[in-house]
Amino acid sequence: MLGTLRAYITTRANKDRMSLFRYLVPLTTILLICCSKQHSAILYASSFSLIAYLAANWMIPKVGNAFIKIGLFGKDMSKPGKPVIPESVGAISAGVYILVMLLCIPFMFYKYMVTATSGGGYRDISIVEGSEQPTNFFPHAKLSEYLSSVLCLESTILLGVADDLFDLRWRHKFFLPAIGAIPLLIVYYVDFGATHVLVPGFLQNFVQIPLIDLGGLYYVYMGAMTIFCPNAINILAGVNGLEVGQSIVLSLLALTNDGIYLTLGHPNTWENHRFSAMLILPFLWVSMALYNWNRWPAKVFVGDTYCYFAGMVFAVVGILGHFSKTMLLLFLPQIINFLYSVPQLFHIVPCPRHRLPHFNEKDGLLYPSRANLQETPAKGFFIPILKLLNFFKLIDLEYDNKGQLINCTNMTLINLTLVWFGPRREDKLCRLILRIQFGVGILALIARHALGKLLFGHDNLWTID
Amino acid sequence: MLGTLRAYITTRANKDRMSLFRYLVPLTTILLICCSKQHSAILYASSFSLIAYLAANWMIPKVGNAFIKIGLFGKDMSKPGKPVIPESVGAISAGVYILVMLLCIPFMFYKYMVTATSGGGYRDISIVEGSEQPTNFFPHAKLSEYLSSVLCLESTILLGVADDLFDLRWRHKFFLPAIGAIPLLIVYYVDFGATHVLVPGFLQNFVQIPLIDLGGLYYVYMGAMTIFCPNAINILAGVNGLEVGQSIVLSLLALTNDGIYLTLGHPNTWENHRFSAMLILPFLWVSMALYNWNRWPAKVFVGDTYCYFAGMVFAVVGILGHFSKTMLLLFLPQIINFLYSVPQLFHIVPCPRHRLPHFNEKDGLLYPSRANLQETPAKGFFIPILKLLNFFKLIDLEYDNKGQLINCTNMTLINLTLVWFGPRREDKLCRLILRIQFGVGILALIARHALGKLLFGHDNLWTID
Repeated sequence: MLGTLRAYITTRANKDRMSLFRYLVPLTTILLICCSKQHSAILYASSFSLIAYLAANWMIPKVGNAFIKIGLFGKDMSKPGKPVIPESVGAISAGVYILVMLLCIPFMFYKYMVTATSGGGYRDISIVEGSEQPTNFFPHAKLSEYLSSVLCLESTILLGVADDLFDLRWRHKFFLPAIGAIPLLIVYYVDFGATHVLVPGFLQNFVQIPLIDLGGLYYVYMGAMTIFCPNAINILAGVNGLEVGQSIVLSLLALTNDGIYLTLGHPNTWENHRFSAMLILPFLWVSMALYNWNRWPAKVFVGDTYCYFAGMVFAVVGILGHFSKTMLLLFLPQIINFLYSVPQLFHIVPCPRHRLPHFNEKDGLLYPSRANLQETPAKGFFIPILKLLNFFKLIDLEYDNKGQLINCTNMTLINLTLVWFGPRREDKLCRLILRIQFGVGILALIARHALGKLLFGHDNLWTID
Repeated sequence: MLGTLRAYITTRANKDRMSLFRYLVPLTTILLICCSKQHSAILYASSFSLIAYLAANWMIPKVGNAFIKIGLFGKDMSKPGKPVIPESVGAISAGVYILVMLLCIPFMFYKYMVTATSGGGYRDISIVEGSEQPTNFFPHAKLSEYLSSVLCLESTILLGVADDLFDLRWRHKFFLPAIGAIPLLIVYYVDFGATHVLVPGFLQNFVQIPLIDLGGLYYVYMGAMTIFCPNAINILAGVNGLEVGQSIVLSLLALTNDGIYLTLGHPNTWENHRFSAMLILPFLWVSMALYNWNRWPAKVFVGDTYCYFAGMVFAVVGILGHFSKTMLLLFLPQIINFLYSVPQLFHIVPCPRHRLPHFNEKDGLLYPSRANLQETPAKGFFIPILKLLNFFKLIDLEYDNKGQLINCTNMTLINLTLVWFGPRREDKLCRLILRIQFGVGILALIARHALGKLLFGHDNLWTID
């Protein structure tokens, strides 16, 4: 009891150390405004982001009781006494984001709407009538991109709300995000239609072709991405602030990538990366508002709605911004977490209902949670692999004194972090994971632009194919 | 008790009389397919409508328990014993509609996607490169229209879900539909931008101008329409099947109007009315599925989500199909209901919490419900008006033997129907109101096309301005 109390007091003192984001988020926003060549769109997005932040930050604490009243609440398992706090409050952030994106449209397209006024009636008719300047008509393709993005995000939110309310089954909800992404893929098909992937230089010697056209498969790949990203964020969860925190880190990384292109990249790439920044900036700020209330000790839980929504923001930006492969690179920690989880997800190793780290009330620390291998043993062929993982410290096995396997730590990145770095308090664990994620992301970005040049002979940051 | 039982038995026998829609809905669909000049879009919409109908009709009875479990249920006040049935189930119809509209996109735009394949990369670039045929590039404006419509409907559904869950306050939700309609208004501005209204011929002699440009006011008018339509359907409610029934009648009327234009109208108008039919057909069929379960005796309630969604479908179609004024004409019964309700909505006459007709368990009939004028009397200046309304049989007043006003019937179209035609059983009342609505709608359509010619010197059905 004394230990718990001490842990709590120490936190209060350490609390401001958690708010590294407080400096990083505004800094990134300002840097991005500075380095964007054409300021207006990014400026609009930034100002609306600020409004969105204030609105979400004001609303989230107010709605808690209403959420609890209709049964949307959960127990915080990693706190003394397991307090009940409102669940699914991330829906507020998502809702504010959508409202702001809708309010943004007239501002984003204002300059086109003014220059395109050649009188009433069908305005894009001017292009057919022979005016040679393609800047002089309304960019319908841009509007379609924007609308399909918001539409896809709204569909994802609806799915998330349904899941939060009804706990949908996997087989019912699995393909739904891909249906929500249909408008996106149509716009991609119509506007770009590029389904080629580059073959790395060293492989070109063997296959003798520089490009492979994946055709329809490329659309399957993009559809799969819209299914993967939302779920990836949803399964790297269970520690206060981690769902939002990882989304903020992903946003910062994606914005860094955008900033690099807007500064050093070819002008052809600017439009895509401005589009990406326009979509991510408001998301970053509504997430920041949510993080204020979801970080340790959490006052609210974010819920499935936010996780799906967050994942879909990155899928949309990756697809329509034409850097879906770079985006997947930024999802490396989530991909590793998913692959690492596969043995339990497919029940090769028994999977308990919850795989959250175990909270020890005595010292207030989190310990890796464990799957019981005595009640339901792991599949026989997998036991040597478990031992191999144990050898490389990628899992922790416990034996009884007869040398029989008792249990193994649950196979999630969170538990693995605890295996590596020892038991930690929840906030420190979250911070550690976010730092690892940020580090991996920065390395991935460097690798992508350095190795890209090495592997393919060129990189689209420096030369455009 | 015996009376109730008898009423129930009679219904069972009469049940198939309720299903006039069973013939009208498929008939209208087939007629529309026949009279549409270019079949493909309407055919796709019809086939997807059928799928939507089957899906919704299959799902609605299955989800009832899940809805009740999370607290979405209501008491049916006009049945013996006030049974509890699931509430907000119309959200299923709305969800199925959105899914189908998304799945529809590739089919709707398939022919453009095939003809426009001049290779990868930016495909609409072909138009800039000088090809003279404007049919040879992708119709981005059409896609924007379609996407903005679905987006607007999804926003409305999200608002409806929030209202069903949290019972939002008027001041919080009032302007939200107009924000959801921003994409719609942008697309309207860009593609059409017509903000003129015709001045009727007999007035032209006085004002000397044939057209008045409303400018920005026209957008305010359209925004107001997106607020009015959803709420209009929501307040003409309270009898089993009425919310869905009136939406089905509105759909049939709008489709009739589309059919007239597609048969007799100028080719310029075909595209708009095909667009309208494409949006309304799936709506009609998902509503039909809902009607199967919501009609007397109701197994489910529809909820705010469906009412808002239904109203917004008509607002969207009216605005982007360019017949918002005709659409408002079809809303005449709802407008009258709203105007008739105003004295109670603004508390000039006291407004009880529920204004549903009063159910008499003894004879199983509905009687007009009444507002008590003794506890809280009506505003003094309005009492002569009440007496005038009473004189014209537009309300029913009750006096005590001293000649003091005791109460008046609640001011809704439903109660007024009961005042006019006497107490009825719920299903007969609903059918009666729907028939009146259908009759008024047909008269309105005739008036619009006959008087339109008379008032303005021409009608866009026969000659295009």
